[in-house]
Amino acid sequence: MADSSPPEVTAFSWVPPMPRGLVRDIRVRWALEEVDRDYRTRLFDRRVSGPEDRKPEQPFGQVPAYREGNVALFESGAICLWIAEKHPGLLPEDENARASALSWTFAALNSVEPNILLLQYVTLFDADKPGAAEFVPTAQSRLADRLQQLSDALGERDWLAGEFSVADILMVSVLRQLGRGDRLDPFPNLVAYVARGEARAAFKRAYDAHMADFMADAET
Amino acid sequence: MADSSPPEVTAFSWVPPMPRGLVRDIRVRWALEEVDRDYRTRLFDRRVSGPEDRKPEQPFGQVPAYREGNVALFESGAICLWIAEKHPGLLPEDENARASALSWTFAALNSVEPNILLLQYVTLFDADKPGAAEFVPTAQSRLADRLQQLSDALGERDWLAGEFSVADILMVSVLRQLGRGDRLDPFPNLVAYVARGEARAAFKRAYDAHMADFMADAET
Repeated sequence: MADSSPPEVTAFSWVPPMPRGLVRDIRVRWALEEVDRDYRTRLFDRRVSGPEDRKPEQPFGQVPAYREGNVALFESGAICLWIAEKHPGLLPEDENARASALSWTFAALNSVEPNILLLQYVTLFDADKPGAAEFVPTAQSRLADRLQQLSDALGERDWLAGEFSVADILMVSVLRQLGRGDRLDPFPNLVAYVARGEARAAFKRAYDAHMADFMADAET
Repeated sequence: MADSSPPEVTAFSWVPPMPRGLVRDIRVRWALEEVDRDYRTRLFDRRVSGPEDRKPEQPFGQVPAYREGNVALFESGAICLWIAEKHPGLLPEDENARASALSWTFAALNSVEPNILLLQYVTLFDADKPGAAEFVPTAQSRLADRLQQLSDALGERDWLAGEFSVADILMVSVLRQLGRGDRLDPFPNLVAYVARGEARAAFKRAYDAHMADFMADAET
């Protein structure tokens, strides 16, 4: 009776060009590629308003959501951690290293990403709102402080918890949102860390599939 | 050779009056109280600059950090989830309910708390910075949208994943930051949800101990 069909990941078939390559389904695809799991995607067109058919599995109207057999998850962090718990390779076996990986998983999403989001609000999503432009230097300063702490903590290590783990999938994905801008440049070890993540074969497969799902819809 | 001494939680012995009752060590204390674990605290005085002696276990100079035997964690979300994994009572046994609890744990920290933090930046931490006051209505609007989604998702349920879970410790704690202000008032089910969390005996014990650690230092 077990459902052995591959897990389903929701993603967008269309978003504006800029966020392509960054939408959060790529984090889940990356985790699945790292553990060699096939998956299928269910695509939603961001241009279509009132996406009622996805609300039951994603309270915030976002992607990704994840379904495997009868189990449903949302939130990229939860899905990646779930995958890491169910397959070898994304959580260290040593208990203290595993605790470190768990700590850094949450640090990526609750201590680093919110500072990136703050800057995104005032420079992108709400850039046209009163006060946004004037607040940019403050948001930049908050982010720089946080990145300095992260840079100091990473030091010369390749990965946050010693070996590569789910924490790196999330932290690299979070930092990738800074893109080709200059926010990361003062921290060469973070630039190298992101490049190290993006150089992994599993990341490349995830990225290509993520982009291909936009391309499939390119003419609409 | 196992270390059977109670786990250690770091907390502050002094913060300004306003954040008392809200500093994130209370989340970990609450989780420990729910599973009936004793713990000891190691206190830091927020007024003392250059807290070098805590940096090794908390890259961002924050509390809480957690130590149990040889295992060290940081990030309130990671610590609470770790405690939930090691003790019965904070994660449902049913696999789909457990997936829901994990999803909501991350939703609290990565989809709800960042919008509260955005408002805190422009009304508290950086209220005196250029643009902050003008950006407040935008931050309020972003937060209201997110709270509406959360309110819709919770509906008439008592707890996010069916039974009480670690997700509720984190979501209630996140929403408590909105305090006695009026941001939560338009959502009676969220007001009742927070009150339901705060009425738990384990929360009350955690709150009292959290406040007592400030009181112990009240005269300095």
